[in-house]
Amino acid sequence: MLKIGLDAMGGDFAPEAAVKGAAMAVNETGEDSRIVLFGDEERIRAILAAENCNTDKIDIVNTTEVIEMGDHPAKAFQQKSDSSITVGFGYLAKGLIDGFASAGSTGAMMVGSMFAVKPIEGVIRPTISTVVPNAKGTPIVLLDVGLNVDCKPEVLCQYGLIGSIYAESVLKIDNPRVALLNIGEEETKGNAQAQAAYALMKAESEGGKFNFVGNVEASHVFSGKVADVIVCDGFVGNTILKMVEGLYQINKRLGVDNAFWASMNYENAGGTPVLGINAPVTIGHGKSTPLAIKNMVLSTERTIKSHITAKLQNAFKA
Amino acid sequence: MLKIGLDAMGGDFAPEAAVKGAAMAVNETGEDSRIVLFGDEERIRAILAAENCNTDKIDIVNTTEVIEMGDHPAKAFQQKSDSSITVGFGYLAKGLIDGFASAGSTGAMMVGSMFAVKPIEGVIRPTISTVVPNAKGTPIVLLDVGLNVDCKPEVLCQYGLIGSIYAESVLKIDNPRVALLNIGEEETKGNAQAQAAYALMKAESEGGKFNFVGNVEASHVFSGKVADVIVCDGFVGNTILKMVEGLYQINKRLGVDNAFWASMNYENAGGTPVLGINAPVTIGHGKSTPLAIKNMVLSTERTIKSHITAKLQNAFKA
Repeated sequence: MLKIGLDAMGGDFAPEAAVKGAAMAVNETGEDSRIVLFGDEERIRAILAAENCNTDKIDIVNTTEVIEMGDHPAKAFQQKSDSSITVGFGYLAKGLIDGFASAGSTGAMMVGSMFAVKPIEGVIRPTISTVVPNAKGTPIVLLDVGLNVDCKPEVLCQYGLIGSIYAESVLKIDNPRVALLNIGEEETKGNAQAQAAYALMKAESEGGKFNFVGNVEASHVFSGKVADVIVCDGFVGNTILKMVEGLYQINKRLGVDNAFWASMNYENAGGTPVLGINAPVTIGHGKSTPLAIKNMVLSTERTIKSHITAKLQNAFKA
Repeated sequence: MLKIGLDAMGGDFAPEAAVKGAAMAVNETGEDSRIVLFGDEERIRAILAAENCNTDKIDIVNTTEVIEMGDHPAKAFQQKSDSSITVGFGYLAKGLIDGFASAGSTGAMMVGSMFAVKPIEGVIRPTISTVVPNAKGTPIVLLDVGLNVDCKPEVLCQYGLIGSIYAESVLKIDNPRVALLNIGEEETKGNAQAQAAYALMKAESEGGKFNFVGNVEASHVFSGKVADVIVCDGFVGNTILKMVEGLYQINKRLGVDNAFWASMNYENAGGTPVLGINAPVTIGHGKSTPLAIKNMVLSTERTIKSHITAKLQNAFKA
């Protein structure tokens, strides 16, 4: 039995979009999987009924509060103790669900990740990553994409290991190529942070921790030619993500229509996994549609099945 | 009389591409403009003849050496004293030409900019910028794009003023909107560098130095909706440039064909101006085609005519 927790009240179009997404996902999850919805039970049941959803594999945990986008994340997480996010994290911390996903307050999701689930021992700073598509049609893990905007080199180096384990266990990429995003290919290129991170990553790679292939320039982020895992600080990673989102929107208006750009649609991304904490957590886009929610539920299921938490705990064991 | 200096020996396809580009440009430069070519006179004359180029408005300064891409920039700049770049900067420093452009060694061009032409008094760090197109069809100045990869907030703040003066005088944008690239719109967003830069830029704006409109997220770099001048450090700016170059190449292979992506072609960019030094200098892409060289010559002419050097000297006067 595997239980995927989903915040039914999270996102701009909740609970409708979230519950509809769950109804779509339930047809595609594994036989042993159940979806556990946290939220207003009455409203959830009404939406499920309207969708003619078979609820055999759906559980509902009734909650009476919602953390709003305008709420202070840390305060709201504590004060709204019967909110869908707070209760969801309570279930996750107790092992009553195996993973938790929400398109609600990113801040509250991070508070839950850091204080209810907690960082894995040995991980300096957990990270949020994104799986970006590329021109070869394979996935690339990009991390960090916005959580740590002032990364020490040691943190970037750990992201190499975290990304490598994610790529191998969740994305099933064999011996993933890990690269450091930099402004040149040579070892001596880059700012002080990148130069120091390069040296650390090279040493870790020589110690067999992961397969470091050196620097990757941004021209190759979407080519897939150089790397399967791309490490950068959260300021740069977030900039890359937002830039491609902006170009995606421009292309859409211009009528550009091909598989590469279609794959850039955030609805397919399956949300942003929080990595380096003691349970699978996925954060979705605030404007998530039912399709985006469905993919987030399925990617959370894949993450749970990959046993990545145990693998990370093991890798960071002193 | 206005004299545009061009390194005929710079770039992967020199001297052919450079001289052909000059031959194309000479038909479009102003009546009073002359192009001064630095390089192997015999080879230059042969190419001009093959192109049936009217040489009434072309001068040639014969040089016997070339700084190669593999050369150490600072050493080569001094030791190859009869190289096209070294001689060109000598002419520029003496006022024998009004601007200098090259698609040759970027390192040597920077050595010349910093030591022959020198930074403008008061400018902490000169910058290289790029004019990027946007979906509205207007130009945007992005700076820095790779020279200063570890920028202090004071340096970023100065880039706001430099970019504003460039946008106003060269691109003829009235009261240009200057924004700081950041990962959120709010004042409190970003890394330590961006937060500190925001405060400085806001103060300068209130002092009337330039029109600071706040943060711009990377999703709007190419929308043109938020800003005419976008300030970031060289690591981030270079990443943005290379990423869009990579996407341009992917789109080309996929057959995407529209005015927006066509405008991303580096050949139209007109090279990268070095700003904050005592004369107009433009650096071209190593792989510059004749078309790219032509546009670089024309953009250098525009820069000379804008009197931006005097304007910057004036703006930074204590």
